[in-house]
Amino acid sequence: MPDLKKILKESSEVIDKQLGLYLPAGKGYPPQLYEALRYSIFSGGKRIRPVLCLAASRLCNGKDEDVLPVACAIELIHTYSLIHDDLPAMDNDDMRRGKPASHKKYGEAVAILAGDALLTLAFELICSGEADLKKSAICLELAQAAGKDNLIGGQVMDIMYENKELDLPTLEYIHAHKTGALIAVSTKAGAIAAGAGEEEVKRLYNYGEYLGFVFQLTDDLLDGEGYCRILSPHEIRQKAADLVDKAKEELSCFKDEAWALRDLADYILNRKY
Amino acid sequence: MPDLKKILKESSEVIDKQLGLYLPAGKGYPPQLYEALRYSIFSGGKRIRPVLCLAASRLCNGKDEDVLPVACAIELIHTYSLIHDDLPAMDNDDMRRGKPASHKKYGEAVAILAGDALLTLAFELICSGEADLKKSAICLELAQAAGKDNLIGGQVMDIMYENKELDLPTLEYIHAHKTGALIAVSTKAGAIAAGAGEEEVKRLYNYGEYLGFVFQLTDDLLDGEGYCRILSPHEIRQKAADLVDKAKEELSCFKDEAWALRDLADYILNRKY
Repeated sequence: MPDLKKILKESSEVIDKQLGLYLPAGKGYPPQLYEALRYSIFSGGKRIRPVLCLAASRLCNGKDEDVLPVACAIELIHTYSLIHDDLPAMDNDDMRRGKPASHKKYGEAVAILAGDALLTLAFELICSGEADLKKSAICLELAQAAGKDNLIGGQVMDIMYENKELDLPTLEYIHAHKTGALIAVSTKAGAIAAGAGEEEVKRLYNYGEYLGFVFQLTDDLLDGEGYCRILSPHEIRQKAADLVDKAKEELSCFKDEAWALRDLADYILNRKY
Repeated sequence: MPDLKKILKESSEVIDKQLGLYLPAGKGYPPQLYEALRYSIFSGGKRIRPVLCLAASRLCNGKDEDVLPVACAIELIHTYSLIHDDLPAMDNDDMRRGKPASHKKYGEAVAILAGDALLTLAFELICSGEADLKKSAICLELAQAAGKDNLIGGQVMDIMYENKELDLPTLEYIHAHKTGALIAVSTKAGAIAAGAGEEEVKRLYNYGEYLGFVFQLTDDLLDGEGYCRILSPHEIRQKAADLVDKAKEELSCFKDEAWALRDLADYILNRKY
């Protein structure tokens, strides 16, 4: 069997190539907007969400061509949320992935609109081509995960508590909504795009939900934020390892075929950046 | 036959009631976000776009229950675009419809996120309930009209030319993209939701496109902006009247049934606010 590193490399190349088809260099009008879109999309993101989406679809015997617009849409939503998070009125971050944030490079107005455009493009990609029942189902899932009761609600709470002491339930609310929901929907949407049955969709959603939690725990371990203020590093590692076990249990119905998603869970548990 | 005023009143009441179901008072979490959403949605908008959407659906014998989520989604997209337009980094307007703009009332961070939430909720509403082929088609139409090549592209150009001399082609580009596309898609989406045939959908789209143009001409006449810097009031009125004639021609296949859309065109031509 191929190893995870190969899969990660191959998957993220497939996704980058597809994103390049949607946002080709030197094309589009107004050029300033298109430049800003490409700048943020091709800025070294790890593509974890679309890789999860693609892996879930492949596990359910889906065709890459059916799931790639969905995987790319999820990356667009993730990228839009980062652009808006970095704005002066929000987290006020000048840098993102070692480069000037969108608003530092293109100004606040274009950065806000570039974020809006990526969010809107996500729904356009999902629904492009022939009308399809799966498309409206996936659209609904993504809109809910990215919407007021999930990603945006989590971000509002994050801002409200910016300079306040956080208790564990509030921190977990923020993480589950701001980060967790979009990761959980990545595997779920991949399964739906592949035409998987209800049971498989549910299992892959649960897996994604556990994994989103693990992702946030290891993220906090790496940057010393969030959970590090409430739990010890040992407690965080233990919690993350338990959640990885639970995530893997959800994959039991897929037998050995699910090796890539199992290895991905370990990879996220042990990541160093 | 009932007159237009009755239809306008009845339609906007139906739409407001439906919007109230989606965003009920005193519910939702975090409350600050939900308050901000309701504040902008229930701030005295004229509901022209959803009224057009509903009227187009009724003309094609659609059921109100099928088109109302679509009509509301279009109003949400319009409202999100106003919230973001008013931001300090954009048009920097402190007031909207005689009340403090969202960012003055709730702060910039919540205003940006409230806009994001309305845009996302629009796609959620369209795709809610049973998966449906029409839903993914409507979703695609709306995403294109609101996206980088229409509404957002127009807004980027508007900002780029903020303090520059505008020629007629650039002004028409901005208007057609920033305002026209969403008005044109209102009638088109209404027709699709009603299950109308290709010819009817096309006619209603053309009608909406002409009407969007008329809307912008009379808007500029009322506030002395845009076209008023390039054309005389007489020229603007003449141009608007010609476009209303063209819009009505598109309705000829619908016979007398289309009286409401004909009267709506005259109403927009002659509006005083």
